[in-house]
Amino acid sequence: MKNKISIGLIGLGTVGSGVAEILSRNRDLIKRRLGVPLEITKIAERDLKRPLPPGISREVITTDIKEIVGNPDVDIVVEVIGGFEPAKGFILSAIENGKHVVTANKALLAVSGEELYHAASRRGVDLYFEGSVCGGIPIIKAIREGLSANRIESIYGIVNGTSNFIMTKMTEEGKEFEEALGESQKLGYAEADPTFDIEGIDAAHKLSILVNIAFGTPVDFKRIYTEGISGISPLDISYAKEFNYKVKLLAIAKMRDGSIEARVHPTLIPHNHLIATVDGVFNAVYITGDAVGPTLFYGKGAGALPAGSAVVADIIDVARNILKGSIGRVPPASFKEEERIPLRILSIDEIVSMYYFRFTVQDMPRVLSRISGILGEHKISIASVIQKGRKEGGNVPLVMMTHEAVERDVRSALQEIDRLPVVSEKTMMIRVEEGK
Amino acid sequence: MKNKISIGLIGLGTVGSGVAEILSRNRDLIKRRLGVPLEITKIAERDLKRPLPPGISREVITTDIKEIVGNPDVDIVVEVIGGFEPAKGFILSAIENGKHVVTANKALLAVSGEELYHAASRRGVDLYFEGSVCGGIPIIKAIREGLSANRIESIYGIVNGTSNFIMTKMTEEGKEFEEALGESQKLGYAEADPTFDIEGIDAAHKLSILVNIAFGTPVDFKRIYTEGISGISPLDISYAKEFNYKVKLLAIAKMRDGSIEARVHPTLIPHNHLIATVDGVFNAVYITGDAVGPTLFYGKGAGALPAGSAVVADIIDVARNILKGSIGRVPPASFKEEERIPLRILSIDEIVSMYYFRFTVQDMPRVLSRISGILGEHKISIASVIQKGRKEGGNVPLVMMTHEAVERDVRSALQEIDRLPVVSEKTMMIRVEEGK
Repeated sequence: MKNKISIGLIGLGTVGSGVAEILSRNRDLIKRRLGVPLEITKIAERDLKRPLPPGISREVITTDIKEIVGNPDVDIVVEVIGGFEPAKGFILSAIENGKHVVTANKALLAVSGEELYHAASRRGVDLYFEGSVCGGIPIIKAIREGLSANRIESIYGIVNGTSNFIMTKMTEEGKEFEEALGESQKLGYAEADPTFDIEGIDAAHKLSILVNIAFGTPVDFKRIYTEGISGISPLDISYAKEFNYKVKLLAIAKMRDGSIEARVHPTLIPHNHLIATVDGVFNAVYITGDAVGPTLFYGKGAGALPAGSAVVADIIDVARNILKGSIGRVPPASFKEEERIPLRILSIDEIVSMYYFRFTVQDMPRVLSRISGILGEHKISIASVIQKGRKEGGNVPLVMMTHEAVERDVRSALQEIDRLPVVSEKTMMIRVEEGK
Repeated sequence: MKNKISIGLIGLGTVGSGVAEILSRNRDLIKRRLGVPLEITKIAERDLKRPLPPGISREVITTDIKEIVGNPDVDIVVEVIGGFEPAKGFILSAIENGKHVVTANKALLAVSGEELYHAASRRGVDLYFEGSVCGGIPIIKAIREGLSANRIESIYGIVNGTSNFIMTKMTEEGKEFEEALGESQKLGYAEADPTFDIEGIDAAHKLSILVNIAFGTPVDFKRIYTEGISGISPLDISYAKEFNYKVKLLAIAKMRDGSIEARVHPTLIPHNHLIATVDGVFNAVYITGDAVGPTLFYGKGAGALPAGSAVVADIIDVARNILKGSIGRVPPASFKEEERIPLRILSIDEIVSMYYFRFTVQDMPRVLSRISGILGEHKISIASVIQKGRKEGGNVPLVMMTHEAVERDVRSALQEIDRLPVVSEKTMMIRVEEGK
C-alpha cells in the first residue's frame, strides 16, 4: 500500500495557487478522509518570479515540463494552465507516460474531449475534470454518479459568473451593458478581452461537457448555438419584468424526439423559477431526471479556492482509485466508451421555443394587425402584448410574448416584419423558457 | 468479471416500488453506464397481495428473509422497510453473510449508525445510504466526495418536506397550523401520526447523519436539540415578514470553537436567502466549506422515484466497487474509522443566536422600558422593535429582534419577563439566523 500520493502540478495561476493552498492547509483533514497524505512533488511554472502560495518551497518549482509528465515519482498530473496548447500536449504526454490526469480545462475538453477520453481509456489511466464546469459545484460528479439512475431530460445552467454578474447589475440597477461590463472588469471578474464570457463561448464549452456526460454522446462543439448578452438592453429587462420574467444567459440542453437541443443565449425565465434567483457571480445548474425530478446545484463558479475545491476533490477521487486499484471505475464520459451513441444536435432553426419580441414601430393604426397577421401566417401565436408610450408619428415599442413556435418560422416572420415601412428598427428577439 | 450484479430487495413499499420501477425502466441506460445489468433476484415482502411494479414477476417475491440475506446469489441487499426492528437485524445478518448493503433508513442510522458502520467495516463490505437524507438529492455523495477537499463550516437544511409544505401553506395562504397539517394529510404528504415530521424528529435524524459525515465525528442523536413547528402561528409568520424574514423548519449544524452546534427548530431566515426560497415539499441543503464557500443542493426529498433514484445510485456505486474490487473505497462515515474524532455537541443553553420575541403585554406606559431593561441585564441587546395595534388597557403584541445572545441568558430573561404583571401570556421566542 502506498503511503502517500504524489502530485505534479502544471501551472501556478489562479486555480493552481488555490489547489496548492488547499492541499497545504487541509492536509491533515484530507489525510483523515483518504488515509494517506497528498503531496505536491513538482510544480511547472514558467514565471519563476511568481509569488509562492504558503507551504510551497522554491525547490519544487521547475520550468521543465518533463520533470512533471515524465517524473517516475508523480502519480497524478494536474493541468491548470488552461487553453489549447501547450495544455493538450502536456496532458497527452502525461497519459502516454501512464500518469492519471486531473484538469479544469473546459475549452480543451469541449473541443478535444473525445481524443483525451480515448487516450486515457486506451492507456488505462484516469482523467477527471470536475473543475472544468461551474468551479466548486460538484456537478460532474452529480451527473456521472449522484443521478446515475436517471434518464436526464433537461439542463438549464447559469455556468458563466461574469455574464451573470453583468445581467444582475443590469437588472438590479438598470445599468447599460457597457457600464456593467466595465464594473465587472474593475472588480476583476471579467478579463481585459471579455469575449469568451460575454459572447457565451465559455458557457458553450461547459454545456458541451455537460451534454456529453448527461446524454452519453460525443458532442461536436461547433453544433452548439451560441449567442451572447452584449445586445441586451435595460429596456428589454424591464419589459421582461412586466411579464414576470428575468433575463439570464442560460446554457440549455434537452432531449427532443431522440435528438438534442443544445444552445446558449439570453433567455427570459419566470422570475420565481429557482434558477432566476441565482444572482451575481454565482453559478447553478437545474437538471431534471426522469426519476429524481428537478434538482438544482448552486455555488461559486470561479476563483482560486472554489475551483481548487473541485480539482482537489478529483485528486482525492483518483487517489482512492490508485489506493484501491480501481482505475477506470467511472468512465470519464460517464457512459462506457462502447456504449456511447452519437445523437444529433438540432440546428437553431429546428428548435421549439416561446419568444419575446420588441418591435420598434411607427404608431400608426393597424400596425398591430399587420404584425400579428404576418406572425399568424408563420404559425406563431401571440400570448400577450404590451404597447406603451403612444406618441403620434414617433417610434414606439410594441412588445409581445408568443406561444411555442419553431425558430425557422420565427426568423422568416421577423425578416418579413422588419421589411414593413411601419417598422423602424431591427426587431429584438429573445427566447423564453418555462424551465420545466 | 461478473456479467451481472444481483440485488435482494427488502420491502416493496413506496421506496421499494420506486427502486424496482427504476431498475426495470432504466435497465439498459444503467447498463450503458455500469457495463453490466442490475438484476433483482429476490424481494422480501410480507404482504403477498401487494400489487407488483412493472417488470417484477410473482416468483421473485418471498416472505422468508433468509432467501435475501443468506442467498449466495445476492450481491447487494437493499433495505427499504424503514424503522428500527426488524430492519436492523436484517442489515446485520446481511453484513455477517458478506453482503453489501444499501439502505434509506434514516431513523436507524441516526440511532445505530455507529454499530452498523463498524459491522460493515469489520466484515469488509460496503454500506451506502444516500436515500436516507433528502431523497433524490445526492447530498451524502456531495459531502463525502464532491466537497472532500473542504473543512465544512456550516449546514442549513430544509430536510423534511412535510413540515416545509405546512410552513409554505401557512406563509403563502395565512393558514393556521392545524389547517395546513390537515391539508398535507389529505394530499398524502403527512402520515396519520405526523409526530416525526412536525416535531422535527425526522429532520433531526437526517441532521445527525449529515453532522457525522461532515465533521468526522460520532453523534449521540439525543444531544441534537429538536423543536417542531406546531407552536408557530400565522401572526409570527407575518411579523417575520415585516422584518424581511421567512419562518422555516431548519436543521442547523456549525463548528464553533472545536465543538458543534446541532439543532432543529423553526428559524427566521432572511427572505432573500436562497434556502428561504425553497417551498412546498422540496428539500435543500445549504453547506459552506472553507474552500468552496456556500453551496446549495436542491430537489425532491421524498416519493417513490426520487428516493428510488438515490437508492439505485448507491446500488450502482457499490456495483462499481464489486466489479473493480474496490470495496471500502470511500468509508461509510466519510472519514477513516480510526481518524474520526468525537466532538462535543453543545447543549441548547450554550448556543449563540439572534432571537425573535413576541411579548403579549398590557399596553401600559413604560412596559417597553421594563422589558428592555431586563433584557439588558441579561446581556441581550435589541436590534429592532415593532409595536402595533395600541389598545388602552387591552393586550397588544410587542415584537422584537435581538442581536446575538447566549441562549441560557435568553431563557433566564424570558422567565423573568413572563413573571411581570404587565405580561399577559407566555412570550413567543423563535431563533434567527442570517445563514452565513
